[in-house]
Amino acid sequence: MTGDRIDMTHGGGGRATADLVAQLFRRHLGNPVLDACEDGAVITSPGDRLVLSTDGHVISPLFFPGGDIGSLAVNGTVNDLAMMGARPLYLTAGFILEEGFPLADLDRIVASMGAASRAAGVEIVAGDTKVVEQGKGDGVFITTTGLGVVPAGIAPGVTGARPGMAVLLSGTIGDHGVAVLSKRENLDFETDILSDCAALNGLVAAMLAAVPDIAVLRDPTRGGLSAALNEIAQASGVGIALNEAAIPLLPGVAAACELLGLDPLNTANEGKLVAICPADKAAALLAAMQAHPLGRDAAIIGKVTDQAGMVQMTTAFGGARMVDWLQGEQLPRIC
Amino acid sequence: MTGDRIDMTHGGGGRATADLVAQLFRRHLGNPVLDACEDGAVITSPGDRLVLSTDGHVISPLFFPGGDIGSLAVNGTVNDLAMMGARPLYLTAGFILEEGFPLADLDRIVASMGAASRAAGVEIVAGDTKVVEQGKGDGVFITTTGLGVVPAGIAPGVTGARPGMAVLLSGTIGDHGVAVLSKRENLDFETDILSDCAALNGLVAAMLAAVPDIAVLRDPTRGGLSAALNEIAQASGVGIALNEAAIPLLPGVAAACELLGLDPLNTANEGKLVAICPADKAAALLAAMQAHPLGRDAAIIGKVTDQAGMVQMTTAFGGARMVDWLQGEQLPRIC
Repeated sequence: MTGDRIDMTHGGGGRATADLVAQLFRRHLGNPVLDACEDGAVITSPGDRLVLSTDGHVISPLFFPGGDIGSLAVNGTVNDLAMMGARPLYLTAGFILEEGFPLADLDRIVASMGAASRAAGVEIVAGDTKVVEQGKGDGVFITTTGLGVVPAGIAPGVTGARPGMAVLLSGTIGDHGVAVLSKRENLDFETDILSDCAALNGLVAAMLAAVPDIAVLRDPTRGGLSAALNEIAQASGVGIALNEAAIPLLPGVAAACELLGLDPLNTANEGKLVAICPADKAAALLAAMQAHPLGRDAAIIGKVTDQAGMVQMTTAFGGARMVDWLQGEQLPRIC
Repeated sequence: MTGDRIDMTHGGGGRATADLVAQLFRRHLGNPVLDACEDGAVITSPGDRLVLSTDGHVISPLFFPGGDIGSLAVNGTVNDLAMMGARPLYLTAGFILEEGFPLADLDRIVASMGAASRAAGVEIVAGDTKVVEQGKGDGVFITTTGLGVVPAGIAPGVTGARPGMAVLLSGTIGDHGVAVLSKRENLDFETDILSDCAALNGLVAAMLAAVPDIAVLRDPTRGGLSAALNEIAQASGVGIALNEAAIPLLPGVAAACELLGLDPLNTANEGKLVAICPADKAAALLAAMQAHPLGRDAAIIGKVTDQAGMVQMTTAFGGARMVDWLQGEQLPRIC
């Protein structure tokens, strides 16, 4: 490759594109399927029930405490598959690069994708690169699509919540949103808060091994815990009653949210999940979660009610309030 | 939805995003899998050998003679699957929208995706929407990923060309590139040239039914016919000898290329394919192609040689020249 920045020829489909693929993408992501350089990746079907999921990533800034757009793009799609009960296996990645973007930054991002995909046990088997003129993009956008296989007998879904079931959360909320905002605004918090960006498929596998009939799994990403719970309540035709005191929250995140006027319930996470299961399985599920490094701080945070569509919370002071969806936009480009 | 333009809340993952999905995306693309609104699409595995392919679409302008970014995003990925010999079945679509983009234009684009997917016989089963600030994107970018199944006994691939084989082309070259450029530059050609944007899976199915042992299938998109043939020559370790007089070219495209200083061999196509097969099957394959509406102008344009990596052409005037890869960028953002 000539030069140290992306130029329009890198998106032309000619020699410069081929060089970029060979010298940068394949170096970090290489595997026999990707290296075949076909128009698509040929894979052996891993089972009967498959899951496909896609997510665009436009986070700003590209590098933030605890991660970057590369690890986020891998983990985000791995987690969407895991929330369906699937074992994530294959990813594709589409890059939209802005002319002038430093190749060193792209190299760092793609290296991070390689590390994240190895950590999650998935392979990036197909990719695509396009380039847009300076001022028509913003550094790099990455759209990842994942394919996973759902083991027999496993079928969590957003419609599965039933009154009386227990609501569990795998750990502290708001870490990702506060970490990104602190970097974006150059805020200087006393404690450095890291994004929780992580692949949850290992945690989910441990949970399903303990309690195969988990009814609902959902990762509270953009929109935060409140959006995830409202989606579940709406789709399942149930209500959810939360206990604020039980919701894990780092003191530093609580302080930052207070300072910035954010509600931690609306603040994004990238390595947390909500699980809903029959009440008599909640203790076993909680134990399985707490035994996994990514579920150490897991807690039972509430229960499912019959008040369709209502997500309510008993506050730490004993009051009650509705937990509504975010109306406007709390933090744009958080993922 | 309030307002008639995309705003940042449409990408927030809250209520505005949900409204956009319900009122616009699901209206045009709805099917039972997409409507389930899960984190991913659960599908039954369609067979043993699967193909995954992804492509980002950043074409400018978004609407052009013969198509738009919506039909292009569907057909482009359908064609990548078809080139692997696969029957395309499922697509995912990730949208990156620029704040301020007119909802009416988005509606038109998504309607076009719906029409193209129905025409190609594929379902869009999962999607994602992100929004970036005005000036950080360019209207809309669409990344589509496709899943297809490869029938038993079918295995075209870019490494399959062998000396002596015949090289076929399904129709005229350069239509897409010239159509887009004419619109972009507001050029006024006497004949309106339309993009050839089309789904090739039906043509490929007819071809494979006639000649199951097609060695190579490739669609000459960005980079044009020259890039596709050079990729094949390099990957297969062979040469290719072309006969210029045999390459189908519309007079209007030839004239436009002459005027604009473009080489039709480097000019993009979105509804054409190159096929390479044993010489003794070439007549049968040509007949099958010509019997299909998208292969009416198909021709045998050359043969595979043993001169590794060399793509050469006998010109219409009897001379010979190398057909090299595009060095720089002919037309940025052509797909």
